[in-house]
Amino acid sequence: MGRAPSGSRNAITDVDGVTVGHRTLDEPAAVNTGVTVVDPTDAVAFEQPVTGNAFVLNGFGKSTGLMQVRELGTIETPLALTNTLDVGTAASALVDHTLAAGPDVRSVNPLVLECNDGYLHDIRGRHVSAADVHAALDVTGKSVPEGAVGAGRGMTAFGRKGGIGTASRRVEIADESRSVGVLVLANFGRLRDLRVGGVPVGQRLAAESSAGESTLDGEQGEDADSAGDRNDGSIAMVVATDVPLTARQLGRVAKRAPLGMARTGGYAHHGSGDLAVAFSNAPSGADAAADAALDSLFEGAVDATEEAILSALFEAERTEGRDGHVVDALDPAAVEDALQSDAWA
Amino acid sequence: MGRAPSGSRNAITDVDGVTVGHRTLDEPAAVNTGVTVVDPTDAVAFEQPVTGNAFVLNGFGKSTGLMQVRELGTIETPLALTNTLDVGTAASALVDHTLAAGPDVRSVNPLVLECNDGYLHDIRGRHVSAADVHAALDVTGKSVPEGAVGAGRGMTAFGRKGGIGTASRRVEIADESRSVGVLVLANFGRLRDLRVGGVPVGQRLAAESSAGESTLDGEQGEDADSAGDRNDGSIAMVVATDVPLTARQLGRVAKRAPLGMARTGGYAHHGSGDLAVAFSNAPSGADAAADAALDSLFEGAVDATEEAILSALFEAERTEGRDGHVVDALDPAAVEDALQSDAWA
Amino acid sequence: MGRAPSGSRNAITDVDGVTVGHRTLDEPAAVNTGVTVVDPTDAVAFEQPVTGNAFVLNGFGKSTGLMQVRELGTIETPLALTNTLDVGTAASALVDHTLAAGPDVRSVNPLVLECNDGYLHDIRGRHVSAADVHAALDVTGKSVPEGAVGAGRGMTAFGRKGGIGTASRRVEIADESRSVGVLVLANFGRLRDLRVGGVPVGQRLAAESSAGESTLDGEQGEDADSAGDRNDGSIAMVVATDVPLTARQLGRVAKRAPLGMARTGGYAHHGSGDLAVAFSNAPSGADAAADAALDSLFEGAVDATEEAILSALFEAERTEGRDGHVVDALDPAAVEDALQSDAWA
Amino acid sequence: MGRAPSGSRNAITDVDGVTVGHRTLDEPAAVNTGVTVVDPTDAVAFEQPVTGNAFVLNGFGKSTGLMQVRELGTIETPLALTNTLDVGTAASALVDHTLAAGPDVRSVNPLVLECNDGYLHDIRGRHVSAADVHAALDVTGKSVPEGAVGAGRGMTAFGRKGGIGTASRRVEIADESRSVGVLVLANFGRLRDLRVGGVPVGQRLAAESSAGESTLDGEQGEDADSAGDRNDGSIAMVVATDVPLTARQLGRVAKRAPLGMARTGGYAHHGSGDLAVAFSNAPSGADAAADAALDSLFEGAVDATEEAILSALFEAERTEGRDGHVVDALDPAAVEDALQSDAWA
Repeated sequence: MGRAPSGSRNAITDVDGVTVGHRTLDEPAAVNTGVTVVDPTDAVAFEQPVTGNAFVLNGFGKSTGLMQVRELGTIETPLALTNTLDVGTAASALVDHTLAAGPDVRSVNPLVLECNDGYLHDIRGRHVSAADVHAALDVTGKSVPEGAVGAGRGMTAFGRKGGIGTASRRVEIADESRSVGVLVLANFGRLRDLRVGGVPVGQRLAAESSAGESTLDGEQGEDADSAGDRNDGSIAMVVATDVPLTARQLGRVAKRAPLGMARTGGYAHHGSGDLAVAFSNAPSGADAAADAALDSLFEGAVDATEEAILSALFEAERTEGRDGHVVDALDPAAVEDALQSDAWA
Repeated sequence: MGRAPSGSRNAITDVDGVTVGHRTLDEPAAVNTGVTVVDPTDAVAFEQPVTGNAFVLNGFGKSTGLMQVRELGTIETPLALTNTLDVGTAASALVDHTLAAGPDVRSVNPLVLECNDGYLHDIRGRHVSAADVHAALDVTGKSVPEGAVGAGRGMTAFGRKGGIGTASRRVEIADESRSVGVLVLANFGRLRDLRVGGVPVGQRLAAESSAGESTLDGEQGEDADSAGDRNDGSIAMVVATDVPLTARQLGRVAKRAPLGMARTGGYAHHGSGDLAVAFSNAPSGADAAADAALDSLFEGAVDATEEAILSALFEAERTEGRDGHVVDALDPAAVEDALQSDAWA
Repeated sequence: MGRAPSGSRNAITDVDGVTVGHRTLDEPAAVNTGVTVVDPTDAVAFEQPVTGNAFVLNGFGKSTGLMQVRELGTIETPLALTNTLDVGTAASALVDHTLAAGPDVRSVNPLVLECNDGYLHDIRGRHVSAADVHAALDVTGKSVPEGAVGAGRGMTAFGRKGGIGTASRRVEIADESRSVGVLVLANFGRLRDLRVGGVPVGQRLAAESSAGESTLDGEQGEDADSAGDRNDGSIAMVVATDVPLTARQLGRVAKRAPLGMARTGGYAHHGSGDLAVAFSNAPSGADAAADAALDSLFEGAVDATEEAILSALFEAERTEGRDGHVVDALDPAAVEDALQSDAWA
Repeated sequence: MGRAPSGSRNAITDVDGVTVGHRTLDEPAAVNTGVTVVDPTDAVAFEQPVTGNAFVLNGFGKSTGLMQVRELGTIETPLALTNTLDVGTAASALVDHTLAAGPDVRSVNPLVLECNDGYLHDIRGRHVSAADVHAALDVTGKSVPEGAVGAGRGMTAFGRKGGIGTASRRVEIADESRSVGVLVLANFGRLRDLRVGGVPVGQRLAAESSAGESTLDGEQGEDADSAGDRNDGSIAMVVATDVPLTARQLGRVAKRAPLGMARTGGYAHHGSGDLAVAFSNAPSGADAAADAALDSLFEGAVDATEEAILSALFEAERTEGRDGHVVDALDPAAVEDALQSDAWA
């Protein structure tokens, strides 16, 4: 999407200093959840916080830590993503992780985002432990597996298997080449609304599918038996960059991520927790870019978000979950067929 | 766009009580501007304010009246749309209009939205007068001319002539059929980014066009000689409904309009004033709909916004403006050709 | 403060349906912390959420749950107050508490507020357990002990022992007598800035005290050895009412609480997490009061907040904490002397 | 108020580069209004915008320009203060003023704040002209007359004559001596609530007064015959500093101003437009101060706001207005008597 090139990994980790780690919990049938951490800096975040901000498109969600991010414009822990009911566990684990930074630390703002994987996962079982968060922190690196991994293990998007997706763009800011990367936890949308590269292929896919047997196709969330309650539908978006920015500017960047979401067919339904966190790990002494230079960054954030969501879909695998619930993977061949149709006029 | 049917006019005026009036100022070469008013109720708004709220996607703009709308959740005047530099004039005119409501009125909150038509229009000339606002108020009705009329007279969108667009959807809320209508003042975007029905036809249109001579195609706003300064790029979105809603809920509705904008290819560039005002003119005693019933309304707002923007493009005519500036209309045949291409995979 | 009478208990529990419970953890020297819960309704909050909203004066804090409260305008769990580092534990406990409401519950928004008691308390020890939260929930009732109890156990305000305070006012709204009650967790301020009933007695108290030996008097927070890091300074304010209100109106109520805080001498220092949550537990079907009728409610919220903070001070007892830290109680006789001085001109 | 010393003028103009100009309109009986401008820089603001932000405590008001200030964090025109109904006129005049900065200017964000002087002033007469705004701009300087001058000409505060007030503080930020100055347009409050230096002298003054004949003492705004409609009650606060700050930090500064207002006895009633704009005119290249260094600035902003409001009261003179309305000046001797009473315990 868009005209700017991707980074070498086409991942949020194309931003120098950013690493990602997953801890996936999957036990037959009941347990399909996990933790994904995005470490925003190769320094200790608590000692050298990155600049950050957030935008909430639809606040039906349980993320924690946003208040201080907005006040101070800084992020002082890795970001953890997990399921809705284990946010407290993840927050506590991030606190413990950060207390280790020094004996005088008595205040920590853990940043945890979430979506609800309760359709496939026994979310009431509270399966995520502090050890799982630490395990994710222990394996952070530049490689970013996508789809049904980490926090994405039990997520559903557009009636198909969703989860973790990532993408990046190279952007030119004031004659310097910089990176913007996005990681999403995609857990929203109905098949019929899906747009791939903008093209509304979901209409055709849903029509074909309704002749079949999948119960998730048309109406995710409207039927508790088929896709859990409506709270399922959510997306957490993390935008990283090495462009030097103020917190105010990062708030503007965060507001662009939902535009990429919209292009995939999302409506931000009532029951969704749709939000974006944006951060810059440029050295704190660097002069912030001029506002007038930000357009390519805004575009990169939109385009990378759109692509990250689609990447989550294309990378995720069919998953069997609790109570016989099954979510299929999106079929690339069917998408290809739909795109090659000449019916778009 | 979307699955819900349009209202009978496919216009914001499909919402009972809503009327629209235009006052177009066009004098050869220099003057291409105007005023559009949306009257939210067939009562006197000051005496029976409608419930309202707003969302600012990108606040590089000069709209006035939003602060009180957010505090009180009410709109007490017609909404006026005009060019950036004549907001004060329009606000004053709305005050005068409202003082006529009664001899004890000593406080009025005029609501004025704007975009910058300075590429085609001699905006520094401050051509809009109070009389023009009153003229627009005098001709409000159910018919809504689109394109290069009223406040849309001098606007440019996707490198082609933009302006006023409108669309509506029928929605089912708690088993009752209701309306949601959108009116936009579209003045944003680059041709290469245009998506029609989601399909990114702009890439092809821009490629074809660059072989030609138009200076606006690729890079609106980046070249002051071709498309004015970057402040040109903006969109004002007005969402009307007769669904009984609280101001909080209308804030949620307002947040959906930019998702429709995004689907047409907008990025909300730095220099844009992108905002949405949403109102409900349901009787004030009516019980607000449940939040859980709002999804079809959200979808209608997104879909109608997307369609209203495209409608502005398809309805607008080639316009010659100041200093030899010319903006062509979007060519429907070229769009059709692009849509029928099979290159979308 | 103010002219409206207090309720019979002069406590937040004067609002029908509201109850409060404390769990205090105090072990010699090291452990001075606890949990306070405010149950907003005598129904199950998850099944019959109360209407709510919040205002953040200074967001250097770790409270959780505010995002959804703002989006939906509802509070679906009891509010828990505790120390900064145990927010995750308290949130998890509230989730468990709420899952018990029914087997289909798969989404819960726990609401937890906090201040930092790390000067007196071994906050790094993470002493609060889920069992402590459940214990506080188990003992909720109409009586509200104040001072160094529950979450207030280790808090410091104006260089003296702070903690939990509460007050209430009777207000007339549209000819009906209603209640507004406030509960604060007071952990902010320097002695020299203290105003009692508005009178700046702190100047005199601080001058007298500086001849003595207390290390907390003048400069709480500026000397890590004397009062912990600056993050100590915070106040959480909870405003309850039975006036039927919309979420928008409750946001307005929440914004008044800091005005009461200001009158006691607070400045909302950089390191503080100063916020207010306001809720109404009026039946959801009740028509909201008119905005124009809210002034007595606003006044009651301001006055009760001012009084609740002072009440926390006057009720709290001298407390010995970690590493030999000691915080004295405010001496009522010294305050009386200062008030009776005729030096205020 | 507070411990920091005032600047040499004890005015907002103690901040280098800041100047203030008044244009007062007073014709016997009917006309009591005016314009006050605060020029934030000795450069041309449009060419070298100052950094700024705003906070709205209660948004029942008609100020304009805040949206862009919040988005971009900059102020590009002088600030104009005037009466509620002439905001559009003042905005238009600021546009004209700014267009003169250069032939390529096609976008201007005029910043206008207002209060409602309709009790003393024939506000419906729309007496302020563009020429009046230009006249105020023409006379800006370092001297700041207070009370019933400029925009303050017709304002009422605490049942007594209010209007323009100003004060300043010297603050130490990172070992450098800096200034913070406040200018208020005070038009709020009831006599019985007045606190001077914190001491609630208003109770006594109101009791004494009610034996007399003034109709404004107890219940400003509740009786249309005595003090106009409730929209009268408002305060506009402008905070200036030369401390280098980001827009985010200036938002924090702006939030402190209402704490000073609260200390004078204000409740931010429903009908008030209470807001604060804060700006820094430090050179744009200067490194922003650390957040942790801001406490003395926060304190200075609170203290200077409290003092500026009281200064407006003490400087204003008895004023006769429309329809026989008269507002007395606050009697300093009565305040002195009340302060010296020993009844505060």
